[in-house]
Amino acid sequence: MKQSKLFTKTRKEAPKDEVSQNAQLLLRAGFIHKEMAGVYSYLPLGLRVFNKIVEVIREEMNCIGGQELHFAALQDPELWKKTDRWSDEKVDVWFKSELSAGGEVGLGWTHEEVATMIMRDHVSSYRDLPFYAYQFQTKFRNELRAKSGLMRTREFVMKDLYSFSRTEEEHQAFYEKCAEAYAKIFDRVGLSHVTYRTFASGGAFSKYSHEFQTVCDSGEDTIYVAPEKRIAVNKEVLEDSVLKDLGLLREELLERKAIEVGNIFSLGTRFSDALGLTFKDESGADVPVIMGSYGIGPGRLMATVAEIYSDEKGILWPRAIAPFQIHLVEVSAQNSETKAWAEELYKKLTAAGIEVLYDDRDLRAGEKFVDADLIGIPYRVVVSDRNLAERKIEILDRAKNETVMSTEEAVFALMQEEGNHV
Amino acid sequence: MKQSKLFTKTRKEAPKDEVSQNAQLLLRAGFIHKEMAGVYSYLPLGLRVFNKIVEVIREEMNCIGGQELHFAALQDPELWKKTDRWSDEKVDVWFKSELSAGGEVGLGWTHEEVATMIMRDHVSSYRDLPFYAYQFQTKFRNELRAKSGLMRTREFVMKDLYSFSRTEEEHQAFYEKCAEAYAKIFDRVGLSHVTYRTFASGGAFSKYSHEFQTVCDSGEDTIYVAPEKRIAVNKEVLEDSVLKDLGLLREELLERKAIEVGNIFSLGTRFSDALGLTFKDESGADVPVIMGSYGIGPGRLMATVAEIYSDEKGILWPRAIAPFQIHLVEVSAQNSETKAWAEELYKKLTAAGIEVLYDDRDLRAGEKFVDADLIGIPYRVVVSDRNLAERKIEILDRAKNETVMSTEEAVFALMQEEGNHV
Repeated sequence: MKQSKLFTKTRKEAPKDEVSQNAQLLLRAGFIHKEMAGVYSYLPLGLRVFNKIVEVIREEMNCIGGQELHFAALQDPELWKKTDRWSDEKVDVWFKSELSAGGEVGLGWTHEEVATMIMRDHVSSYRDLPFYAYQFQTKFRNELRAKSGLMRTREFVMKDLYSFSRTEEEHQAFYEKCAEAYAKIFDRVGLSHVTYRTFASGGAFSKYSHEFQTVCDSGEDTIYVAPEKRIAVNKEVLEDSVLKDLGLLREELLERKAIEVGNIFSLGTRFSDALGLTFKDESGADVPVIMGSYGIGPGRLMATVAEIYSDEKGILWPRAIAPFQIHLVEVSAQNSETKAWAEELYKKLTAAGIEVLYDDRDLRAGEKFVDADLIGIPYRVVVSDRNLAERKIEILDRAKNETVMSTEEAVFALMQEEGNHV
Repeated sequence: MKQSKLFTKTRKEAPKDEVSQNAQLLLRAGFIHKEMAGVYSYLPLGLRVFNKIVEVIREEMNCIGGQELHFAALQDPELWKKTDRWSDEKVDVWFKSELSAGGEVGLGWTHEEVATMIMRDHVSSYRDLPFYAYQFQTKFRNELRAKSGLMRTREFVMKDLYSFSRTEEEHQAFYEKCAEAYAKIFDRVGLSHVTYRTFASGGAFSKYSHEFQTVCDSGEDTIYVAPEKRIAVNKEVLEDSVLKDLGLLREELLERKAIEVGNIFSLGTRFSDALGLTFKDESGADVPVIMGSYGIGPGRLMATVAEIYSDEKGILWPRAIAPFQIHLVEVSAQNSETKAWAEELYKKLTAAGIEVLYDDRDLRAGEKFVDADLIGIPYRVVVSDRNLAERKIEILDRAKNETVMSTEEAVFALMQEEGNHV
């Protein structure tokens, strides 16, 4: 895409009321727009990153047999009364409204109830199970405080998967499979080295739930990390009995702030009992379905990456989720030959299926480089008057902060190496 | 996909309170689930169709230079007070709620205000214009009545594009370009023969707005169609002066019920004046931006197709938006050789990038065919014991209701012809 056509502009300062680093960077780079506290819109560059994260998650969910669907946001109170999750005393994040036709309506902050009810129409025999349904859908949570940028918002897309199994063993097997898929997702977006499977409190149906926590000073959670063993314990369950369970010693644990980037829960029959989701087993007996739920917020993941991968100049997107692979910057004093060369290279790169943001704007080189640093595309390719005669181009690896003088061919070779061709 | 793995089941009857044909068919075929009046979830088959419609629209919006973004649903009342669209007396479809941190919040039913405010951060000079921003995003409308299935819902995804131009001429040129893109979209989803560009009431800034109306007995609108001229007039503006404007004679008009599948509006400076979106022109003067808005609801389009393309047995999806291209049905009395053949064909077809729903379930042929008719995939390919010896397969063209005996090779040739290979 030509940057002269991209309508978003970078800005020097983030809004004064924005304290979080992720939102400051993403706002300044023109990735998001703040509507009000805890509510953001995604601008074109931000949406590109967001969609790439979504696609990584989708691929991994499809790999473990997930079937994608899309639930509604508007919620019928009657459904939630059956599971005792409608009253504001029980759940303090509801947004509720009135139907003009009469009656109340809620905005979904999670979808266990909806998922369970829908499956009543589709499950009758043991032959119908197991299966796994997931969605990317907007949740609404009436958070009292929202000050961490995209980390904790009042409106956000969540990937929520619900599993429906016949037996505890069948459930556990999928639960582990999903945990492995989550590990792959965090690896693909560049967070595996700082992300820990973390033991947290379970519920009526399991001793523990599992969080995936990314160690980061701006995180809202406190965890205790066993770096060698690649696991952690949430502060809420840091007890001797838990440590014994996990074979951990208190002295090997490091206290860290962390961001919860995903979680997985065993729900047992909590929802299938309350809402009557049963199946007939081989003997003809009615048995409640065993459920699990598995969440990841792509927006929070994007914010976490912006926290972890940034320097004083801006963001450093990992290639798998960068808005573009190459930032092509043309630097010329109205030299039409340099411009023509840059234009030609832009066309060749995009024709090869490489995603290029082409800075063709009439700005000074310094301004272009400041913008490029802030936006954080992995490779900057500079075509300039100075190197026109020799047809040399400058390639900057944004993450390594290394510049090499090179050739057009080398750019294509680099992209091929990185597997970025279509 | 193997149908034995697909968790959704078809059903003989739609819920009793569902009167619309589109919802009855889509519910029975397992494409959608009704959450409450006017609120539906999309199940896997429905989401596939929905996503294909979205992709058609996205391609056409990108073709005319649209830049995709994603606005938030939660709305700040202060913004809407400035355009006098917050009060329930002025706008009767608001869902409103309370922030737990204090203050009111609304659920976006359209996004002119948000779009205008965001652009204040990005527009300063005439060099920044024109541009076009669009999104696929969930709108909420507190409809008093919702009885037409997916036609009029309380929650629905809309593609809304907003144009930002410097002059009336620049605006008009894009307005026409967008109208042509809309015509292409309706053509690609199979509705062009029954869809009319329809003149409707304008606003302060233009004499007319334009609706795209699809003639259909179950439509909620009444229009007057000039079939030869491929245009129509909405009942609300059926006046002599309008007919004179358009060069239409009353006697050539046919009264028809129709579904509004899209609309385009010239907004003039209504929003840029109220919210202060201006640019500096070549002379340095501050000038308000000229705006337009352009909407299409992919869900309503899906419902319209289900109304237009159906028979007494079920839906007949046009190929461009069918959930799968081929419904492969294996009919065998536990004959493992037939099953192996079907399985092998399934693998070959999917390896060739063809989308196949493979009915591998242990059901009688009659049940499988009833399901296939209801689901409405364009081609049914039947592999049966009867034709095993000769390796013949049956191909049913669902729309033409024609069956031919053929070969595997013919199926591949047919798909290639239809351009369905990856």
